[in-house]
Amino acid sequence: MTKAEANKISTDEAAIRALIESGNQAHHRRDAAAIAAPYAKDARIFDLAPPLSHHGLDRKELEAWLDTWVGPVDRDSRDFDIAISGDLAFGHGFYRISAESKAGGHAVFWFRATLCLQRSAGEWRIVHEHTSVPFRMDGSFLAATDLEP
Amino acid sequence: MTKAEANKISTDEAAIRALIESGNQAHHRRDAAAIAAPYAKDARIFDLAPPLSHHGLDRKELEAWLDTWVGPVDRDSRDFDIAISGDLAFGHGFYRISAESKAGGHAVFWFRATLCLQRSAGEWRIVHEHTSVPFRMDGSFLAATDLEP
Repeated sequence: MTKAEANKISTDEAAIRALIESGNQAHHRRDAAAIAAPYAKDARIFDLAPPLSHHGLDRKELEAWLDTWVGPVDRDSRDFDIAISGDLAFGHGFYRISAESKAGGHAVFWFRATLCLQRSAGEWRIVHEHTSVPFRMDGSFLAATDLEP
Repeated sequence: MTKAEANKISTDEAAIRALIESGNQAHHRRDAAAIAAPYAKDARIFDLAPPLSHHGLDRKELEAWLDTWVGPVDRDSRDFDIAISGDLAFGHGFYRISAESKAGGHAVFWFRATLCLQRSAGEWRIVHEHTSVPFRMDGSFLAATDLEP
């Protein structure tokens, strides 16, 4: 890899990390438009909740989810590994949500996130996102929302 | 994109689809070595079961899981979208497992899969895999193992 290529990748990685950080800040503000902004229109989203897959970010569902919390929805990102080649990139790491539920109680949970991105008209766009928690294979089939990385 | 570049991507996509299909066949044979073969040694794996993340494929755990079934573990893949740039690729789609449990009963379930790959010494290797089912946000926190794509 030439120095110019290495510099380019480092700039791209910084742009993708900034995209993730902007998402964290948008969660804090409960700003659905800002959360939705980096997603490609036809992004394939494997979400925490059913169904198995969404075609494009569902703004209504996002707003309904944001509305289940009181005050800021704090989302932190940790341990994101990012790889880039040309106009393609992927990243994987963990998110931690900490927020006050309208139903009562303070929720804190970690989940896994994989982001697949493509550069379009000079901007990185999320074309695929996979977020999840594992489930316990002890016969309970319970989502493991109490795990930490 | 030149025609040569397009041909290269089409060859790479065929290689990645073959890797997925080999995994299906290896599941049918309950062949842990063949299932493990395409994973990079330090692959970061977000699995169906806890913990949140594995560093490298856990052969013992895979063998223990394969041993919970009687006869073939049939894994089908569906709707995999694959994107490639240089030595980097990602793919996302669905797997369906159909197998006879030793505990009794025939299990059939779909789950989501995201694969992140890097080419190393001419071979595509899985450097990250994320598999999951969503969970019900109705207060039950139950893994949704009854969904279909």
